[in-house]
Amino acid sequence: MARVHNYYAGPAALPLEVLEEARAELLEFRGSGVSVMETSHRSQEYDDLHNETIGLFKELMGLGDNFKVMLLQGGASLQFAMVPMNLLGEGKSADYILTGSWGKKAIKEARLFGAVRVAATTEKDGVFRRIPRQQELALDPGAVYCHITSNNTIFGTQWRQFPDTGSVPLAADMSSDILSRKVDPAPFGIIYAGAQKNLGPSGVTVVAIRDDVLAKCRKDTTTMLNYHTHVDKNSLFNTPPCLAIYILHKVLGWTKAQGGVESLEKINDAKGELIYGAIDGSNGFYNCPVEKDSRSYMNVVFRLPTEELEKKFVAQGLAAGFLGLKGHRSVGGIRVSMYNANGLDSIKDVVGFMKDFASQNS
Amino acid sequence: MARVHNYYAGPAALPLEVLEEARAELLEFRGSGVSVMETSHRSQEYDDLHNETIGLFKELMGLGDNFKVMLLQGGASLQFAMVPMNLLGEGKSADYILTGSWGKKAIKEARLFGAVRVAATTEKDGVFRRIPRQQELALDPGAVYCHITSNNTIFGTQWRQFPDTGSVPLAADMSSDILSRKVDPAPFGIIYAGAQKNLGPSGVTVVAIRDDVLAKCRKDTTTMLNYHTHVDKNSLFNTPPCLAIYILHKVLGWTKAQGGVESLEKINDAKGELIYGAIDGSNGFYNCPVEKDSRSYMNVVFRLPTEELEKKFVAQGLAAGFLGLKGHRSVGGIRVSMYNANGLDSIKDVVGFMKDFASQNS
Repeated sequence: MARVHNYYAGPAALPLEVLEEARAELLEFRGSGVSVMETSHRSQEYDDLHNETIGLFKELMGLGDNFKVMLLQGGASLQFAMVPMNLLGEGKSADYILTGSWGKKAIKEARLFGAVRVAATTEKDGVFRRIPRQQELALDPGAVYCHITSNNTIFGTQWRQFPDTGSVPLAADMSSDILSRKVDPAPFGIIYAGAQKNLGPSGVTVVAIRDDVLAKCRKDTTTMLNYHTHVDKNSLFNTPPCLAIYILHKVLGWTKAQGGVESLEKINDAKGELIYGAIDGSNGFYNCPVEKDSRSYMNVVFRLPTEELEKKFVAQGLAAGFLGLKGHRSVGGIRVSMYNANGLDSIKDVVGFMKDFASQNS
Repeated sequence: MARVHNYYAGPAALPLEVLEEARAELLEFRGSGVSVMETSHRSQEYDDLHNETIGLFKELMGLGDNFKVMLLQGGASLQFAMVPMNLLGEGKSADYILTGSWGKKAIKEARLFGAVRVAATTEKDGVFRRIPRQQELALDPGAVYCHITSNNTIFGTQWRQFPDTGSVPLAADMSSDILSRKVDPAPFGIIYAGAQKNLGPSGVTVVAIRDDVLAKCRKDTTTMLNYHTHVDKNSLFNTPPCLAIYILHKVLGWTKAQGGVESLEKINDAKGELIYGAIDGSNGFYNCPVEKDSRSYMNVVFRLPTEELEKKFVAQGLAAGFLGLKGHRSVGGIRVSMYNANGLDSIKDVVGFMKDFASQNS
C-alpha cells in the first residue's frame, strides 16, 4: 500500500478516512446483513441514508427550506441540457456568461431548447485568462436565468466574487468548487455539481433548485429529465445510484467534521497563497497565465519555460509520488488540482518539489 | 458480520467474492496509489478497466462486432426516453408489447417522441398474469423497432421464448434477467439493462446497439441523450460512473468464472424448478398467479391464503435470515428474487423455510 499525493482534476482525491470507513463497512451496511450495493432503495436503511445526505448537503451549503435538493445521474453534462430543457421554450431567453470550455458545452445544449444570449465572454484567441468584470456584463433583465461556471478546471479561473444579476436567478455549474468556500445562496436559482471533485465519486450529481425557479419549470418534459419528477419523488422515482450516494454521504460527513465550509475555505485560501506565492516568486520559471483576481483556488495552472521541462516536471513529479500534474490535453502545461481532500501539507509537499525542480533546472 | 440471504428485487445480492475483492482493493486501484474512486477517467488504469468491461460484456452476451456497447447513467428509466428519442420522429412508428409496469412507463415516454402502437397487451383487471402468445401479436412490419420487457419483476413473468418480429429489430429492456440465460442476439437491435440485478450496483446502465439501428438514430438529439455521442466517444464523452463500472467489471468476471451464461442458466433453471415445485406441491397453501409457461425464473411471486399469513411469512423469514421477501408495494404478496448471485443453496434454504412455514400454518 503506497498511497500517493493525488492532483487529478476529477475524479480526484477523497479523504482517506472516507475510504477506510467504506472499506470497513463494504460487506455490511448499517446492520442490514448485506452491502449498501445490495440493499433495496426502498429499505429503511437506504431511505435514512438518502435523507441524511440531502440534509447534510443543505446544512453545509446553508440552503433554506426554499431550496429542494436532488440526487441525480449523468453529471454536469446532463444538467447542461436539463436546465434549459426545463426552463426555456417559446418566447423565453437565458443569459450565459462564458468563461471556459464547460460553459461552451452548456451554451451548445441550451440553444437546442430556446433563445440564448452570451452576456459576456472573456475568450481571446481561443483561451480564457480571466473572469469578466461586472461592468462588462450585458445582462438581460428579462432572462429566465443567467448561467455561470463558478470555477473553470481547464483554464484555472474562478469567480472570486459572483456577478450581480439583479432579480435574474443565477444558474451555476459548481462542479469543481462546491463546498470549497462560503457562498451566499440567495442569488442562485439552480446550483448543480457532478460529485467527482469535492463531493465523492463520479456517478452522482447534486442539483439544488429554488422553489420559485422550480415553479417555472415545464411540466411536459420527458419524465427522467423533468425536475418536478425528482423533487416530487425525493429523487426516488427510479433506483438512485446508491453506492455513489453512500460515499457522498461520507464525504459530506467528513466536510462537516472539518468545521464545514468556513474552515475549509481558510485552508483552501492558505493552499492558494502558498502555491501562487511559489509561482510568482520563481523569477519567471513558473508562469501562471491567469490574471491575479481570476485565479482558481481549486485548479492551479502554470507553464514552465519549455514543453520539454514540463514533460520532465510531470515525470519527475510522478516518480516522487505526485500524481496527475499534467494539464488538460486541450491546453497543455501543468495543473495542480487541490480540492478539499488535499490538505495544506499536500500542497506544501508539491511546492517543495516545485522549488527543488526550479533550482535544478533554471 | 452476519450476512443474510438476500431476495431483494434490486439493488440485489452480489457475489460475495466480488465484494471481498472490492474491499481488498478499495484504497488502491491497480497499483496506481489511489482508489478507483480517485483515479482520472483519462488514466491508463481506468481506460483499461473500461475497455475490459465492454469486452467482457460482449463476450458473455455473444455480441459480434456489429454491436456497440455503451456504459451510461440514468437506469432503464432513462432508456425508456432515449430509445424513442433517438429512433422515432415524424412519420415513424414503434411497436410496444405490454407485459407489465415497466413497459407502461416505456410507452408513456415513447409517446412524447412519435407514434406508438401497442402490438399486444396481457393486462386484465389491472394485472398481468402471462406473456402474450405469438398469434396474439398485431405487429407492424414497418415499425422502427418492437419493444419488449424480457422479465417483469413486479408481476413475476418472463419471455421464455422471444417473439418473432420478422425484420423489425427488438428493443429489449433486459434489466432483470440479463446474463441469466443464453440469448441469441440476432433479432435484437437494442438491449439495455440497469445494472442493479445481475450486473452490479445501481448507477450504471449497459446499452448494446446494433450498427444498422445506430445508423437510423437521429443526430439532432441533445448531446448526452444521443447514442452517437456515446458510441463515438466510447462512453467517455464525460466522466463515466467509474466506481459502479469497476464493480460491474468484477461481476462480469465472476459470471465468466462460473462458466458464463450457459452454466448459470442451468443453475437458474434448477432454482426455478425447485421453488415452483414447492409452490405447486403445497396443496394450494402457496399460489402463484402466473400462467405456467410465463413464469419468471428471476422473480418468483406467490400468495398465501391470507394477507395476515403473508405478513407473518415476511416477518418470520426476516428473523430466520431471509431478507426482502415482501412483494412489490403495488401488488402485495410474496416475491423471491433470485438473480445469478443467489446460488442453488440459497433457494434450497428458502424452500425449506417455505415448507416448514406451510406445515406450521396449514
